[in-house]
Amino acid sequence: MKKINVGLIGFGTIGAGVAKILLENRQVISDRLGAELNLQKIADLDITTDRGVALPDGILTSDIEELIGNPEIDIIIELIGGYEPARTFVSRALKSKQSVVTANKALLAKHGNELFSLARENGVDFYYEASVAGGIPIIKVMRESLAGNNINSVCGILNGTCNYILSKMGDEGADFAEVLQKAQDLGYAEADPTFDIEGIDTAHKLAILTSLAFATPIDFDKIHVEGISAVKPVDFAFAQEFGYKIKLLAIAKKEDDCIETRVHPTMIPEKHMLAKIDDVYNAVFVNADALGPSLYYGQGAGMMATASAVVGDLVDIARNCLDKSLQRIPDLGFQVAAIKPQTYRPMSEIVSQYYLRFTVYDKTSVLSRIAGILGHNEISIASVIQQGRGPDGETVAVVMQTHKAKEKDLRAALAEIDKLSFIAAPTTVIRMESDL
Amino acid sequence: MKKINVGLIGFGTIGAGVAKILLENRQVISDRLGAELNLQKIADLDITTDRGVALPDGILTSDIEELIGNPEIDIIIELIGGYEPARTFVSRALKSKQSVVTANKALLAKHGNELFSLARENGVDFYYEASVAGGIPIIKVMRESLAGNNINSVCGILNGTCNYILSKMGDEGADFAEVLQKAQDLGYAEADPTFDIEGIDTAHKLAILTSLAFATPIDFDKIHVEGISAVKPVDFAFAQEFGYKIKLLAIAKKEDDCIETRVHPTMIPEKHMLAKIDDVYNAVFVNADALGPSLYYGQGAGMMATASAVVGDLVDIARNCLDKSLQRIPDLGFQVAAIKPQTYRPMSEIVSQYYLRFTVYDKTSVLSRIAGILGHNEISIASVIQQGRGPDGETVAVVMQTHKAKEKDLRAALAEIDKLSFIAAPTTVIRMESDL
Repeated sequence: MKKINVGLIGFGTIGAGVAKILLENRQVISDRLGAELNLQKIADLDITTDRGVALPDGILTSDIEELIGNPEIDIIIELIGGYEPARTFVSRALKSKQSVVTANKALLAKHGNELFSLARENGVDFYYEASVAGGIPIIKVMRESLAGNNINSVCGILNGTCNYILSKMGDEGADFAEVLQKAQDLGYAEADPTFDIEGIDTAHKLAILTSLAFATPIDFDKIHVEGISAVKPVDFAFAQEFGYKIKLLAIAKKEDDCIETRVHPTMIPEKHMLAKIDDVYNAVFVNADALGPSLYYGQGAGMMATASAVVGDLVDIARNCLDKSLQRIPDLGFQVAAIKPQTYRPMSEIVSQYYLRFTVYDKTSVLSRIAGILGHNEISIASVIQQGRGPDGETVAVVMQTHKAKEKDLRAALAEIDKLSFIAAPTTVIRMESDL
Repeated sequence: MKKINVGLIGFGTIGAGVAKILLENRQVISDRLGAELNLQKIADLDITTDRGVALPDGILTSDIEELIGNPEIDIIIELIGGYEPARTFVSRALKSKQSVVTANKALLAKHGNELFSLARENGVDFYYEASVAGGIPIIKVMRESLAGNNINSVCGILNGTCNYILSKMGDEGADFAEVLQKAQDLGYAEADPTFDIEGIDTAHKLAILTSLAFATPIDFDKIHVEGISAVKPVDFAFAQEFGYKIKLLAIAKKEDDCIETRVHPTMIPEKHMLAKIDDVYNAVFVNADALGPSLYYGQGAGMMATASAVVGDLVDIARNCLDKSLQRIPDLGFQVAAIKPQTYRPMSEIVSQYYLRFTVYDKTSVLSRIAGILGHNEISIASVIQQGRGPDGETVAVVMQTHKAKEKDLRAALAEIDKLSFIAAPTTVIRMESDL
């Protein structure tokens, strides 16, 4: 039986998962591939800690040079994460005409274009299924299954930590800090959760999905990013009254030849499939011109689920090695000549419905003053909820759902409103998306 | 630019969708493929009816011989449906070394093994993404993305007509016949809906998924099939009290080296993703050893969604033509040597929880008699609901949820119970699945 040799760099949690699959599921893999996928070497700085995987002798090394450029190793798996030395290792492997599989979204979001070029120049594959939504095969679906479609939009719940926190806040009425602590205790959130809760991790993934959807180079800097730390329990209660759920949503859509990419807490109608994704799960919702809406759901992180995506890529590339058809699928699903920088809509120009929660001192004519300012800024109100006196006995919440309005008009209105004497705190804004 | 020529047999609804995509989305397809996917010929007996697609001159023909065996045509699309002449046309095309794409689940369920052999012998591809769950790319996911996994189970809502009917019955408390009529008026159900509502269509699709999951030849006859016509509005109300939804579920699972395949109305916990699939939508839920649970959701039928899947297959095969790597992916995702007939568990041996609705004349000791019979047949009761007197003033419904029990024990118990003098009608049984 033919053999494709694999070298793994980074023997952390995901790396151990990949090793486990390659060793324990060796039979099913060769039954599918018709060749052996052989784990030849693993490189890690720490070669002593037990990862719970029984490795054959001589596999583990601390010397990266045994893997990169080793002509016996066909495919390198990069699972060290972060920008460096991942970028250097991946570049060197590609230049050595080794194909590469990675789960590193940060690397792709920042250096993807350059690494894709390197892969093309060297006639090898650079696959990254595990970098977005963990085990969910969204990259393959977008690059291959949807080949007959123009994609109109792709939206996702791409961070399990945030979805866990928002699900629990919604279900239990608990406070952000309290749920974050619980998530940390359960291992669902990192000790420093900044990248997750501020939306950066989600934005890294959205940068990749945007390019796959719209044939444009990866451009992380074009993404508007807001995290979830400002969402309050009271907002979930109002969302429910309006028939909505709150999710941290990654949104990429194309309208009038303009791309919009944004990550922010979003109210989604509770009937929408994305509103039904609970706990640590991820999901990606794609709207394509022929297929229509479709959704892909599963574990967006975790040792074995992410490793499953890595091994899926390995088998694909192994087939390409066997068939001498490396670079069979273009890196972003489009031929390089078709990939063009596109126009991004500035955030000030986007159109959305808005949930507005005003914290006001309870005086007469508050509502008419707010409505007046919204009105002369072209924002019309769809519905209003005025809550009874708040816990401090002094302020009340006035909550509004607007019709569709421009972000810059909303910002102009809020600049006026938040200066009013009866406004006790900056107004909370959550975008409501009903036509995903 | 290189050109791959395609011939389409069957210019019905899906055929028109495929033509529409190939013509209208020509640019995005060649941007992805790096070659032109050229619709060279369409064969149909009716070459006069307008299908709403502007075809170039000379494409449409009533002579199948212009397509099959035409050395200029690389890929034949079969969209006539049914067993014959589809089987003959597909066989002839494969023998002429033309690759074939089909959406024909009935053909696959009955003749798939023979056609896969033909494709292998002739070194061409025979793809069928559109045959299961319409536009949802479940075949590609199972054949390729999950390559590193052993699959434990695959369950699906695979028939939009049934899911529409069950969703409406659940939401509106409406009767089966009434909702079926509405579905027919809306075009969601055929004039003769037998294949759909009796579960045959779902079973065809399950036969394919079973082989993909467990590396076994397609064997439609091994599937236990029950339709939805016996489910009553009252069952939805009780399901809700237990926290369940009723869906027509296709279930294939492997336990203790034994495969179980069945299609029947099933109560699913309302928190489960499959319980959240409403209206005409389809979804497939896969449990795999590395990935864990994942779900794939979208339109399971319809002109453009199904055509999207057909075109996805075309692009895949076109890449294989260009790379000279036909038969790159084995037909069922496993090398032919790895495909082996497996042991199927007889229906009498399956284990499930059961929802039982007894229709009884309201007498004392009814409950203890039923419980006694269940008990001496090894069936223990998890909960009981006894409803007030029924609308006829004479009978009442006694509803039970059992713990896990063997089907044969249940059948033995019901044979005894349904003979009792106070039982007014045959007992309704719906299986409850909580560990999907």
